[in-house]
Amino acid sequence: MQILQQTFQVPYTYSIFFTKRLFDVANDTLRSFFGSFSQAGFQRKVLIAIDGGFLAHHPQLQEEINHYFSSLEDLVKLVPQLVVLPGGEAAKNDPALFDELVEAIDNYGIDRHSFVIGIGGGAILDLVGYAAAVSHRGVKHIRIPTTVLSQNDSGVGVKNGINYRGKKNFLGTFAPPVAVFNDLTFLQTLDDRDWRGGIAEAIKVALIKDQSFFEWIEVNAEALAQRNEEVMAYLIHRCAEMHVEHIRSGDPFEFGSSRPLDFGHWAAHKLEYLTDFQVRHGEAVAIGIALDCVYSVKVGKLTDAELQRILTVIQKLGFDLYHPKLAENDKINLRNGLQEFREHLGGRLTIMLLDRIGKGVEVHEMDANLIAESVDYLEGHYANLMVG
Amino acid sequence: MQILQQTFQVPYTYSIFFTKRLFDVANDTLRSFFGSFSQAGFQRKVLIAIDGGFLAHHPQLQEEINHYFSSLEDLVKLVPQLVVLPGGEAAKNDPALFDELVEAIDNYGIDRHSFVIGIGGGAILDLVGYAAAVSHRGVKHIRIPTTVLSQNDSGVGVKNGINYRGKKNFLGTFAPPVAVFNDLTFLQTLDDRDWRGGIAEAIKVALIKDQSFFEWIEVNAEALAQRNEEVMAYLIHRCAEMHVEHIRSGDPFEFGSSRPLDFGHWAAHKLEYLTDFQVRHGEAVAIGIALDCVYSVKVGKLTDAELQRILTVIQKLGFDLYHPKLAENDKINLRNGLQEFREHLGGRLTIMLLDRIGKGVEVHEMDANLIAESVDYLEGHYANLMVG
Ligand SMILES: NC(=O)c1ccc[n+]([C@@H]2O[C@H](COP(=O)([O-])OP(=O)(O)OC[C@H]3O[C@@H](n4cnc5c(N)ncnc54)[C@H](O)[C@@H]3O)[C@@H](O)[C@H]2O)c1
Ligand SMILES: NC(=O)c1ccc[n+]([C@@H]2O[C@H](COP(=O)([O-])OP(=O)(O)OC[C@H]3O[C@@H](n4cnc5c(N)ncnc54)[C@H](O)[C@@H]3O)[C@@H](O)[C@H]2O)c1
Ligand SMILES: [Zn+2]
Ligand SMILES: [Zn+2]
Repeated sequence: MQILQQTFQVPYTYSIFFTKRLFDVANDTLRSFFGSFSQAGFQRKVLIAIDGGFLAHHPQLQEEINHYFSSLEDLVKLVPQLVVLPGGEAAKNDPALFDELVEAIDNYGIDRHSFVIGIGGGAILDLVGYAAAVSHRGVKHIRIPTTVLSQNDSGVGVKNGINYRGKKNFLGTFAPPVAVFNDLTFLQTLDDRDWRGGIAEAIKVALIKDQSFFEWIEVNAEALAQRNEEVMAYLIHRCAEMHVEHIRSGDPFEFGSSRPLDFGHWAAHKLEYLTDFQVRHGEAVAIGIALDCVYSVKVGKLTDAELQRILTVIQKLGFDLYHPKLAENDKINLRNGLQEFREHLGGRLTIMLLDRIGKGVEVHEMDANLIAESVDYLEGHYANLMVG
Repeated sequence: MQILQQTFQVPYTYSIFFTKRLFDVANDTLRSFFGSFSQAGFQRKVLIAIDGGFLAHHPQLQEEINHYFSSLEDLVKLVPQLVVLPGGEAAKNDPALFDELVEAIDNYGIDRHSFVIGIGGGAILDLVGYAAAVSHRGVKHIRIPTTVLSQNDSGVGVKNGINYRGKKNFLGTFAPPVAVFNDLTFLQTLDDRDWRGGIAEAIKVALIKDQSFFEWIEVNAEALAQRNEEVMAYLIHRCAEMHVEHIRSGDPFEFGSSRPLDFGHWAAHKLEYLTDFQVRHGEAVAIGIALDCVYSVKVGKLTDAELQRILTVIQKLGFDLYHPKLAENDKINLRNGLQEFREHLGGRLTIMLLDRIGKGVEVHEMDANLIAESVDYLEGHYANLMVG
């Protein structure tokens, strides 16, 4: 028997730009980005797909975009159609929207050297990123996230995906963007729940990696809850930075079983599903973090004093710590979530818990009774609040 | 404005095993491969999807596979269903087959640490590879190619794809397999056209990279035409080796515009399409190579003596050098193929021609009149043959 051995590395590089008023012609962030790509012999095209929920709050944007790109005609050519997609999770459930994007990519002759820009929340970016990643085996993809969660977490990472017959993110790829543009001013029109939601991801990353960032969030919880923009700007930048570092120094395409950034997420995913996505991702993550922190105390890792600090900051930000669906069916539904989480990741069950604030620790099993006790603890906490 | 810079490399590694009677329990190639993956704490699953055209010639195979895997139960668990897919290009045109695969992956709980094995010709491997690449953002994929073309070219590479509304390979990804198993005995049941077809890819890679391999093909053309298996074994190994080296040392995921291994392919793709895939891929590549070699002489690169050697070996193997569709519509159809080739790759037109036997050279334009003259030359050659 003969054997040939193949080994190679694929390099990826992209920048995340933090700016304001991205499509103001006075802002040359996009212009200089496209300038860096210009090459004699052909003109690159740009197709834009945008979150309709976001666009409704920014009715002047379409004109601003056209105006901005008309000043870039020496560099790139914007195709005449802006693809407007319904925002939110529903977009990831509708295969017709995937088809619509693929068809637009085909109709306008977007090739592997042209750009598809997604503008919107994490759901739209996941859908557009997936369509871009599989068309022509990958056209260049730019993300312009418009929610806190997508600016500090999903939009700066390397994953995309859509739901398939009710299975969350069943279809997707690892496909880094060529650039990400975070515009702080876009966040002004978010409703309070989505403003708050993305903060859960910052708490998550602080808890597993950076005590001082957690302390910064403690100090600034009030300002964040009151929608202070400059404080939010720091939170997003720091969280995105840690996310990017984590991907770089870890296992970017997740070939292993470990997913530290999924701290708090096994229960969150199940809760989103059990509430038919009425509880939004960040809200569910806040509860999932609370649950895994209580559990961490119960298995003798985190101290109770630390737990109280964590629960306090989560509540100060306006999150709930509990949802009745956690207890439903004698907590069996929730425990199934652990199994489903393992199945989605594959391999050996690997769950991140907290050793202390700022330091996560991975475990390979979770005790069903202790999970149930942790749920009871949060329910008690919640009942006390209702009474108190 | 602040900027975060992301940079990382993703490592890939896989082996290509050349063997005979892969599913004979006496052959432990697969056993030792799965053994290298075994890990305490969970059992990996295996789902197999197979080319029905191939299976029809190997009716005992299903039982052999079951038998083989029953001896591997300590290592992996074969799911109870063998997914049988219709072979050939039609499989890549039918989105229902993609859905069927994704559903099987879901139903049997195949996760990112389980395996999906594709067994068949290049078309089936492209379809199965695509479904595996986008399910759970990529489950582990094993290829078992059963045609000459897939054993020496497509199956050892990193691409997959399906056709979308008549657009060849419009949807696909770059997704290296975790292993490739080439079983020489599987080729015995190929019809003569498919046996021959894959040899065109070997001529291609020899012409652009390795004069001595071309000379080896010249010497062995007769034996290859007569289906000498050991000679074919060498051809496949050498061609696969060059393919693998090319990917490793080049641009594996084709971020640039250059695709040297597409020598002879721009006209081939168009010819496949113009003949509604009646001319098979390898047959079309043989004609495409002939055309670009004639053109290379006309632009003063290749010598006429070299051209005659090339045309002779192509003919000795039993390929046609010409097809009437090349001349159709005053050669405009063919010339459009050049444009479509550029569009699919994107960026600047980049075409490989021959400087001499064993050395390709890239050009960025082709002259329409010289293309037409090259077609006429091959037509004349063909007419002479008909007369002579
Ligand atoms: N790819 C990843 O790595 C990753 C990571 C985490 C989460 N996600 C995904 O992200 C999605 C959640 O994203 P999200 O939290 O950004 O919410 P979302 O995309 O669901 O958007 C929430 C709502 O806000 C609207 N909206 C967006 N921007 C707005 C703005 N500036 N002003 C007013 N309204 C606006 C949208 O139309 C939508 O109705 C989920 O599908 C989740 O699976 C992906
Ligand atoms: N992914 C890549 O990088 C890449 C590169 C080149 C070509 N391709 C693709 O490969 C496909 C062509 O593949 P191909 O030439 O292997 O042909 P094929 O897959 O179309 O198969 C040809 C026929 O042979 C049958 N068959 C397969 N194995 C057999 C065997 N051992 N005995 C008898 N019959 C058998 C099949 O059922 C089919 O009817 C095209 O779709 C092409 O686009 C892909
Ligand atoms: Zn999250
Ligand atoms: Zn080919």
